[in-house]
Amino acid sequence: MARYTVPPCTYQVVACKAIARLDKVRIHTLDCILFYYKTTIVNYENMKIGIIQQHNTAQVASNRALLIKRITALASQGAQLVVLQELHDSLYFCQTEDVDHCDLAVPIPGNEVQQYATVAKQCGIVLVTSMFERRAPGLYHNTAVVLDTDGSIAGTYRKMHIPDDPAYYEKFYFTPGDQGFVPIDTSLGRLGVLVCWDQWYPEAARLMALAGAQILIYPTAIGWESSDSPDEQQRQCEAWTTVQRGHAIANGLPVVAVNRVGYEPDPSGLTGGITFWGNSFVVGPQGEWLYQAPRDAEDQHIVEVDMQRSEQVRRWWPFLRDRRIDCYGDLTKRYLK
Amino acid sequence: MARYTVPPCTYQVVACKAIARLDKVRIHTLDCILFYYKTTIVNYENMKIGIIQQHNTAQVASNRALLIKRITALASQGAQLVVLQELHDSLYFCQTEDVDHCDLAVPIPGNEVQQYATVAKQCGIVLVTSMFERRAPGLYHNTAVVLDTDGSIAGTYRKMHIPDDPAYYEKFYFTPGDQGFVPIDTSLGRLGVLVCWDQWYPEAARLMALAGAQILIYPTAIGWESSDSPDEQQRQCEAWTTVQRGHAIANGLPVVAVNRVGYEPDPSGLTGGITFWGNSFVVGPQGEWLYQAPRDAEDQHIVEVDMQRSEQVRRWWPFLRDRRIDCYGDLTKRYLK
Repeated sequence: MARYTVPPCTYQVVACKAIARLDKVRIHTLDCILFYYKTTIVNYENMKIGIIQQHNTAQVASNRALLIKRITALASQGAQLVVLQELHDSLYFCQTEDVDHCDLAVPIPGNEVQQYATVAKQCGIVLVTSMFERRAPGLYHNTAVVLDTDGSIAGTYRKMHIPDDPAYYEKFYFTPGDQGFVPIDTSLGRLGVLVCWDQWYPEAARLMALAGAQILIYPTAIGWESSDSPDEQQRQCEAWTTVQRGHAIANGLPVVAVNRVGYEPDPSGLTGGITFWGNSFVVGPQGEWLYQAPRDAEDQHIVEVDMQRSEQVRRWWPFLRDRRIDCYGDLTKRYLK
Repeated sequence: MARYTVPPCTYQVVACKAIARLDKVRIHTLDCILFYYKTTIVNYENMKIGIIQQHNTAQVASNRALLIKRITALASQGAQLVVLQELHDSLYFCQTEDVDHCDLAVPIPGNEVQQYATVAKQCGIVLVTSMFERRAPGLYHNTAVVLDTDGSIAGTYRKMHIPDDPAYYEKFYFTPGDQGFVPIDTSLGRLGVLVCWDQWYPEAARLMALAGAQILIYPTAIGWESSDSPDEQQRQCEAWTTVQRGHAIANGLPVVAVNRVGYEPDPSGLTGGITFWGNSFVVGPQGEWLYQAPRDAEDQHIVEVDMQRSEQVRRWWPFLRDRRIDCYGDLTKRYLK
């Protein structure tokens, strides 16, 4: 990913990324070279990650306006990367199966994505969005779109694992992704963007790590049904954080998960609706807590993540060294009986 | 695994296993049939699992005698399955590379295993042991041996992932397992037995689950080096529990991990020795805590695990349903760059 030839030094990779990023905002070459030499003694290892945990309404325009206001605020406070929750423009429409909800889908690229691209460019940030993608008539995906600091689309990730539970009828709407588990290169580094249900799958996290992802990022929308007991609520939410912390540990990578928050009724009345449980969080490469948002309130927050720590943690715990790739073939089977 | 033809009922599988177990302790057929009909209305879904977290000395005979005393005590208190820590007969000899330590290795089957087999039979329990296996001159493995209620060897598992860190020179001693990830059938069910370093690998847990394991079991020996700061100690130990709780969640299975405890010096003096951190634990299929042993004391304890709960949890969270087996092929690669 380095775009300049530089002599080896501790911060070489970071410096190159910093240069690449500066390049995008049109600092000229001489400044880049001077900047590089400064980075040999300055620690540029931290990434400031902004997360926005929002309670949505049925008004797409106002949801979007509020998000843009919050993105801008986080950027003004120093956020370099901002991550939004899953399907952040609308209510979580998958509570019912209704073909009319497909009107919410948008083309990529398109006007809706462009609004976020403009914000990313104006703020000079990398922005992880989550869109209901209209790829063709009758062909829709749940797609993360990553916008780079120059407003370009750095890449997309189409949700690969699609759930289907009462009140989460995603198989009705979303065709499973056909791009595989491919991280997205940005001027901040290589981002392993996955979406919601993917977060329960160690395979997805591992494949992103093997492809060089430097961080795992999960926009998500998950909550409790009204009949869940407090004990069951606790078990579910803790399982959700724990399995993702497990991905951080097994792969020696930081993990960011951003969830929506607040109650959204089931329009069909078949279930009691969903109380999205918030708890957006960031952990380091040992699964150590860096931040956890509240369960019952909106939140916007900047978390500083030491992106060099993975290197050290993976030296201590070199799990990638010892994988028994000669014996993992059956992972491509449905079941072994 | 059912050995009797019985009409369908909620507890059919459990009942069959109970019958099979009773059969092994020579309850005659008529009693079995009567017992079966009782189980149609009685809840036999729980398994009582005994764990022994021990501080070892250099005296193999006394370590073993203490273990046998404790196994017998747990069985007398109702334990049906007892799990021992990794390499429970000796000190953790891998702190140095010394060919003389190979004298500790034993054949399987052999006199040492037979001692445990006799205890398993006398107590009518399934016993998970962890042996330094001498397979041939110059060919050694770190092998779990599972003994059934009749004293037979139900199966063995040779540790597949082998670590090598300062004070954990396992690659020197242990040839990586060549049996793959195959659960072991016992009269209590199909046990997914793995060993220590395996616990960091989601691939191992998943392959055991896909092969029908009903529970994951990890004998282990892990601790802190004396130079680790309290913060680092906390991160390491919590990472260790978290990644294994993650396996429970991702696979909808209970997990049992049994660790040794206490300080063992490094004979070479190169490191400050290892303080094994105990914290043996049992979690349910949502990763929910069922028991955690102390970090700094020996422990023997019986934990009752609801073996039917996996069925319910997997219905709620049918992760196996949605695996993208069409896109997991690269898990057999070392790295994708």
